[in-house]
Amino acid sequence: MQFFNLHSRRNSKIDSSSVKIGVFDSGVGGFTVVKELLSILPDVPIVYFGDTARTPYGPKSPEILRRYALEDAKFLIEKGANIIVIACHSAASCATQELRDKLSLPVFEVVTPSVEKACSLSKKGMIGIMGTRATVSSNIYPVLIPTKRPGAIVFQQPCPLLVPLVEEGWLKARETRMIVKKYLRPLKDKQIDTLVLGCTHYPLLKNVIQEKAGKRIKIVDPSREVAQKVASFLKESVITNNLNIEKTRTSCIREFFLSDLTPHTFEIVTRFLGRKVELKKA
Amino acid sequence: MQFFNLHSRRNSKIDSSSVKIGVFDSGVGGFTVVKELLSILPDVPIVYFGDTARTPYGPKSPEILRRYALEDAKFLIEKGANIIVIACHSAASCATQELRDKLSLPVFEVVTPSVEKACSLSKKGMIGIMGTRATVSSNIYPVLIPTKRPGAIVFQQPCPLLVPLVEEGWLKARETRMIVKKYLRPLKDKQIDTLVLGCTHYPLLKNVIQEKAGKRIKIVDPSREVAQKVASFLKESVITNNLNIEKTRTSCIREFFLSDLTPHTFEIVTRFLGRKVELKKA
Repeated sequence: MQFFNLHSRRNSKIDSSSVKIGVFDSGVGGFTVVKELLSILPDVPIVYFGDTARTPYGPKSPEILRRYALEDAKFLIEKGANIIVIACHSAASCATQELRDKLSLPVFEVVTPSVEKACSLSKKGMIGIMGTRATVSSNIYPVLIPTKRPGAIVFQQPCPLLVPLVEEGWLKARETRMIVKKYLRPLKDKQIDTLVLGCTHYPLLKNVIQEKAGKRIKIVDPSREVAQKVASFLKESVITNNLNIEKTRTSCIREFFLSDLTPHTFEIVTRFLGRKVELKKA
Repeated sequence: MQFFNLHSRRNSKIDSSSVKIGVFDSGVGGFTVVKELLSILPDVPIVYFGDTARTPYGPKSPEILRRYALEDAKFLIEKGANIIVIACHSAASCATQELRDKLSLPVFEVVTPSVEKACSLSKKGMIGIMGTRATVSSNIYPVLIPTKRPGAIVFQQPCPLLVPLVEEGWLKARETRMIVKKYLRPLKDKQIDTLVLGCTHYPLLKNVIQEKAGKRIKIVDPSREVAQKVASFLKESVITNNLNIEKTRTSCIREFFLSDLTPHTFEIVTRFLGRKVELKKA
């Protein structure tokens, strides 16, 4: 099983005169990452692609996800992106190396920053992962975490019902709380002290998850972590590559493309982003 | 809004020397239709295509579903199918006319037989539909039912969480029962006397649905209805077109193709079909 080189993106070059961050996701979940990026980097252009015509990625195979991820990234590059952010955990878990091998630009993803954060947060090294079937089956967390923190033990829980519950907006429903509790039970039994929300949808359930997990368990939100990683990289590039973020201000555009659009999609995106935005059909 | 001609398939010709039924679905749900076909027509060859690489169809737009349905049907025709059965309600609701316009072979689908059954079963003409967002948004049931039974009133309830619950195998879970009850509440408030299970996944929840709906409400299982429709058509063809079903016995094969395969897919298919079968990657 091959996993990706944590630091290969450092060697990549981007055009220092302009930056355009391309974010892709299996659907609308990646808007949690966009929200964090907009908060940390309000002046940097972003182009988003959500593959709503083939969503979700979570139950699908690594082979299919590698194909889809490459197509998604190429779409963003056609739209001018020179930095790629894989917002989807399922795609990040299965397809990051494929993208780094085939694309000559920096590729960020949600898994590595979450691994680093979980390893630094955890006191006992007992780390729980909530994720889709694709992410859990990839075993990326159980493989990567011990390389960053020898001796750490990782417990995984596939949580396939949380994506549809979030997409339905049942964020505080009794049924959602019961299902979150059921999924957390095996992780709590193992006495984890840190929990990674290993899917872009889960931050919307953060309050319920924190409540059911209990105060002793620290929660890692990958959306925030990856946004900070991108920000650090850009800051470093300002110094090392003479990157002028200010220059991009005048051309600061945000474009949000989806491969399928329904009236319900608009509702969900508004929920994820906390405000209305224009959505374009890819 | 255009809906399909209920009887256009009657005019289609099939090769009377051999029959091969092609069934397609957004994923594995169509195996409920296959199960009924195998029960009623044990000697007729079947080829199945489940679009697991792009499943589910329920939350997607009519435009996307028309494209997918045509691709799915063409795959089956390449595999020798000369009768097409659209097992997926979402695709049937949005794409039947497209397929009948573009393909020169009989196209059966799950909606029409369900409409006919519901109209004949209902005493008061108060008919409830449980379905995906695509099926409900298509309005096919509220349009077709009054054409078969003037004065009938149709009440629809989108039930997007039932597909993932069935795929998880939570067929009797407390959470599933609560969610079924919640979805049925508005339909019961309208005093429906007949209920159509408007998605191939729902027959697996038939017992829970019947329990929560109450004994007074009669349930229509489209999988059974469409299989009987195909059987009647073949019987009629035996007389009118000299079709010899017996001749097909020696070449009686069943092939099950899926556009994506994961270990979990095998589990779900076994649950749907009640036994293990060989699955091929399309």
